[in-house]
Amino acid sequence: METMKAVVYRGHETIELTDRPIPTLLAPEDAIVRVTRSTICSSDLHILHGSVPRAKEGIILGHEFVGVVTAVGENVKKRRVGERVAVNVETFCGDCFYCRRGYVNNCEHGGWELGCRIDGCQAEYVRVPMADQGLHPIPQSVSDEDALLVGDVLSTGYWAAQIGEIEPASAVAVLGAGPTGLCTMMCARLYSPACIIAVDVNDERLAAAKENGLCDVTLNPSRDDVEARIRALTDGRGADRVFEVAGAKDTFETAWRIARPSAIVVLVALYAQAQSLPLHLMYGKNLTFKTGGVHANACGDILKLIQAGRLNTAPLLTHHAPLNDALTGYRTFEAMRDGCIKWVITPYER
Amino acid sequence: METMKAVVYRGHETIELTDRPIPTLLAPEDAIVRVTRSTICSSDLHILHGSVPRAKEGIILGHEFVGVVTAVGENVKKRRVGERVAVNVETFCGDCFYCRRGYVNNCEHGGWELGCRIDGCQAEYVRVPMADQGLHPIPQSVSDEDALLVGDVLSTGYWAAQIGEIEPASAVAVLGAGPTGLCTMMCARLYSPACIIAVDVNDERLAAAKENGLCDVTLNPSRDDVEARIRALTDGRGADRVFEVAGAKDTFETAWRIARPSAIVVLVALYAQAQSLPLHLMYGKNLTFKTGGVHANACGDILKLIQAGRLNTAPLLTHHAPLNDALTGYRTFEAMRDGCIKWVITPYER
Amino acid sequence: METMKAVVYRGHETIELTDRPIPTLLAPEDAIVRVTRSTICSSDLHILHGSVPRAKEGIILGHEFVGVVTAVGENVKKRRVGERVAVNVETFCGDCFYCRRGYVNNCEHGGWELGCRIDGCQAEYVRVPMADQGLHPIPQSVSDEDALLVGDVLSTGYWAAQIGEIEPASAVAVLGAGPTGLCTMMCARLYSPACIIAVDVNDERLAAAKENGLCDVTLNPSRDDVEARIRALTDGRGADRVFEVAGAKDTFETAWRIARPSAIVVLVALYAQAQSLPLHLMYGKNLTFKTGGVHANACGDILKLIQAGRLNTAPLLTHHAPLNDALTGYRTFEAMRDGCIKWVITPYER
Amino acid sequence: METMKAVVYRGHETIELTDRPIPTLLAPEDAIVRVTRSTICSSDLHILHGSVPRAKEGIILGHEFVGVVTAVGENVKKRRVGERVAVNVETFCGDCFYCRRGYVNNCEHGGWELGCRIDGCQAEYVRVPMADQGLHPIPQSVSDEDALLVGDVLSTGYWAAQIGEIEPASAVAVLGAGPTGLCTMMCARLYSPACIIAVDVNDERLAAAKENGLCDVTLNPSRDDVEARIRALTDGRGADRVFEVAGAKDTFETAWRIARPSAIVVLVALYAQAQSLPLHLMYGKNLTFKTGGVHANACGDILKLIQAGRLNTAPLLTHHAPLNDALTGYRTFEAMRDGCIKWVITPYER
Repeated sequence: METMKAVVYRGHETIELTDRPIPTLLAPEDAIVRVTRSTICSSDLHILHGSVPRAKEGIILGHEFVGVVTAVGENVKKRRVGERVAVNVETFCGDCFYCRRGYVNNCEHGGWELGCRIDGCQAEYVRVPMADQGLHPIPQSVSDEDALLVGDVLSTGYWAAQIGEIEPASAVAVLGAGPTGLCTMMCARLYSPACIIAVDVNDERLAAAKENGLCDVTLNPSRDDVEARIRALTDGRGADRVFEVAGAKDTFETAWRIARPSAIVVLVALYAQAQSLPLHLMYGKNLTFKTGGVHANACGDILKLIQAGRLNTAPLLTHHAPLNDALTGYRTFEAMRDGCIKWVITPYER
Repeated sequence: METMKAVVYRGHETIELTDRPIPTLLAPEDAIVRVTRSTICSSDLHILHGSVPRAKEGIILGHEFVGVVTAVGENVKKRRVGERVAVNVETFCGDCFYCRRGYVNNCEHGGWELGCRIDGCQAEYVRVPMADQGLHPIPQSVSDEDALLVGDVLSTGYWAAQIGEIEPASAVAVLGAGPTGLCTMMCARLYSPACIIAVDVNDERLAAAKENGLCDVTLNPSRDDVEARIRALTDGRGADRVFEVAGAKDTFETAWRIARPSAIVVLVALYAQAQSLPLHLMYGKNLTFKTGGVHANACGDILKLIQAGRLNTAPLLTHHAPLNDALTGYRTFEAMRDGCIKWVITPYER
Repeated sequence: METMKAVVYRGHETIELTDRPIPTLLAPEDAIVRVTRSTICSSDLHILHGSVPRAKEGIILGHEFVGVVTAVGENVKKRRVGERVAVNVETFCGDCFYCRRGYVNNCEHGGWELGCRIDGCQAEYVRVPMADQGLHPIPQSVSDEDALLVGDVLSTGYWAAQIGEIEPASAVAVLGAGPTGLCTMMCARLYSPACIIAVDVNDERLAAAKENGLCDVTLNPSRDDVEARIRALTDGRGADRVFEVAGAKDTFETAWRIARPSAIVVLVALYAQAQSLPLHLMYGKNLTFKTGGVHANACGDILKLIQAGRLNTAPLLTHHAPLNDALTGYRTFEAMRDGCIKWVITPYER
Repeated sequence: METMKAVVYRGHETIELTDRPIPTLLAPEDAIVRVTRSTICSSDLHILHGSVPRAKEGIILGHEFVGVVTAVGENVKKRRVGERVAVNVETFCGDCFYCRRGYVNNCEHGGWELGCRIDGCQAEYVRVPMADQGLHPIPQSVSDEDALLVGDVLSTGYWAAQIGEIEPASAVAVLGAGPTGLCTMMCARLYSPACIIAVDVNDERLAAAKENGLCDVTLNPSRDDVEARIRALTDGRGADRVFEVAGAKDTFETAWRIARPSAIVVLVALYAQAQSLPLHLMYGKNLTFKTGGVHANACGDILKLIQAGRLNTAPLLTHHAPLNDALTGYRTFEAMRDGCIKWVITPYER
């Protein structure tokens, strides 16, 4: 049996780079993908720190990647060996009550499996179940790196912007300028708000967002009165749409405070604990809150927008190193060291 | 100066039936309305118990009524003396940023004024500001009583059902079978769900809801495992739409628990204190929460639906007595005594 | 090889009741259905009269039916032998660009096949391709006859009403009170317009529509000034939504004339020839026209609404006779003789 | 009585530059605006050629302009003397059935009045009725020229794009690259289609569209097989959205032929005569047609998008000359001479 290198989760705070058998087809809907680029995601850190109880010890970590198809099961109709593909973070059937409505995150037969319940992509090869749904061919003019974030963090921003129902000429506030926040800004831009306001405590990330045209105004709560500044920018009303992508101690409260009456507040962040919802204090505001977890149902459209030059995640890919250095990557990414926004894992070097 | 009888708020837990001057036009947009029917609403009780701090001592209570126009200011263009009218609970300009979008509850120049900040309708006459927006002519074939709830509690149910985005053939759960809950069921029915499930601890109210065709299934949490029963009714998924109109200790939690993934939960109730929003527990559910306060922008449509026989609040009007007995009305309504759902105040008898 | 009775299309104006082999599974996605009830549809007449050039000579006619599954192919996952099923008029894959968006009428691998390009249901057995998409289990409390129209004419009315974007309290006009017109009224009612106005030259059908609660007002253009009457019913504006289900000489023009400015006009009828669209005459009207052919993507929901008592096609099923009498049925149905709205074909009697 | 210079319509094919009295306030809702920039529009040519029968002889032509408020009536609440304003082509009340729904083109008390039924803007001063609705303050950072097209041709493109319901990553075709076609492309871009395909017989205009980033692909039907090329660009399906802004002999037919099944076709052009709508030929296509006349209800939002740099009409303003040369302007604009897209009229030079 041939082996490959892989980052394996060994339980609380423990990962290792080790040898594992190269995966093979287990079901007729499976495909095997040779990984050409993968990443480290904040969800990987959540697993590592023990806050994803459903994650299984012993699995290979990682769920954001692109690669080349090396084998397909007999029921795979759309994909074929040799195709370059972006891979969906979610495993879904495409045919159940939820999938029919686009709610692939709620799939009756899937959900977030890769790198959590089954082996993931911080490795040389991955087995992808229900491959007709999970694999998306990368257009010829799009590089592997340009497509790298399609299946997870860019899908998250795309979904958030979509359910945000952003109207042209409106004012959008995004709390958090990390990878997901930046992707949310980028996707919010697709709906042509007049103004995107980025809020973060990290000036470096704010500057990057502004320089790359992802936002129009930056605010740092350690310096700025965020609520007052946003009111000043919006004729005293507050933001038309708020995206909470920070998940910090008081950012949920900031989110509803900076929203104007009858605004939509999209809660993208995953919080460590329950938030307080003081409906009696916000009674006259008529807010809508949209919560929880990407429905990654638009990878094909996202790839078209990348191909058309309307989405570009290159500025987020700050660090690159082979799979050999993945453990260093975890530390650098978590510490946001050296301006690290996304750590890109390139193939193992023997 | 002529006087009239009126129920006046004297501060915490104190009201009295007393004499007050008959109101006159103060602004050119005002109208004076002679009250033919009014009600006692749970918001009146909230004022009485001190939980509406913005309510002013000394004002006449009441904000749900119909009447006849007796005078109009010179800038009132649409209404004229002698017309029977239903009156909007909200005072709004019709022209600001919010009113243009239908968000009349957020009007920059209004909001809930009548019976809270200015004199209300538990009296013989009322001054209504911005009368062109606030007064709606009652069609000839619709009686005063049939139109009585249009401006407040029926508008609340109508707005809730509308933002609930109910789809034909779906499953709707309504927590609370009081006046607002019953109106919510009645308006939810307009969108033809396959099933409306009413949940309350009051069997009498549940029976009334069922008998009047407002719901299809009734559940009493003191007897039924509500979550399990709703799953059984929905192929194991949960309700497609949930309306929380109870505002009791644990009904907010029940609301999100009985909702299926990617459902909409409309929070109609006003809570006494902050609720706990455990987003980490509901992460995979992708719920949407819509909160707070009616946008009473559809009174004309509601009157048409009453005229067409599609809405009928007669079963809710359980008690009738003249303004002379209003204080008894407060006690009976609050205690839900004798099956009281709504207490109708008829004109003062001299 | 066992045989069965079937109505076979022999070319222009010629059909015959004859013996044909009982169908067998040809593809692993097929099912065989024993027909318990079927109908004659106006599309069958169109084929007979030569106005459906793509119809193949020699095929068994009929595409509206219910039955019992007698065999399923190995790739059929959802249906099983013995189930009572309503059958979709459209054959579709459920997975192509169009099917993913609900546009099953535009399926890249299907469309209207049964009784047109492949053998249909005026027979004892039918082979149904892509059976997981095309067969819908009938709930136990729903009879075969109650489900009979689900797959075709009721789906057509349901789709028309849905794309009509009917708002509560609005005024809806339906031109044509034949089977499809009546189903359109019935489904329009699901969205709670204040008024449904039925227009037809056949007083008997208008009376039936009114008696069964499918409309509120009836107009007969041979007697009534339809445009003037509709304006009188709508404050002088015209109908908010118009459904053209007549397809007669001047009904297209009537449709846009009776519509108010910025109305939606749904064109359900199939016309024999091109219509004149005088955009210069209707410039200020800002009308939306929605055209052509049902997307029968909601059979499951329609069955739920029948089960819930919200849809009921019993009044349309005016005539019943065994397959033996199908040729008489064609003549009676076409002539609308004896008040015939729908001719129901019951099983062959030996 | 002071006089001013003005272009007056003298009947079929006759205009003259002449002296007219400077207008004064006639109603308390009026304002007087000193024109700083105006244009010649194709609708002016339609009047001149006699194809707008409702146009009155003797009126001053022109309906697209910006200026400075010089007087306001006593009921004008929002505007004040000295403000720079963009002016709405449509006169509307803001309060009738249609205006409440955003259908300002159908206003019960207005419509297209300026330069058609009442004196227009090819003059030094204009009286604007219902000025609170019709005048929009120009943000300080936006020049008069940048705001010049807001009230008419840019509103038309904005409205067309909005009702086109363009989805991100879709394929949009625009027939016609004249001023309205270019504005439609510009506004379609706000919704982030993957591809905008411009179709025109004028290579110069196509090149301008491409160079200014308003489209991605250009097709010239005198050279290209437009239908085949668009299919090739869309996986064989056709355009997701089609905007017909050409109004030429066969462009209506091209519009529905290049649309994919279940597409939306927006008919922006005004045709000289009725079009043929062969519904029998397009039965399986399920097309939606949206017709006729701008609802110019978003001037404030358009100004915000110009301020934000998301809309820019500078490339359309190819020619500039004082009011003295307006008659030359008519000839040059109609002949599209010297690459003329829009002819800008600057103030009269004495």
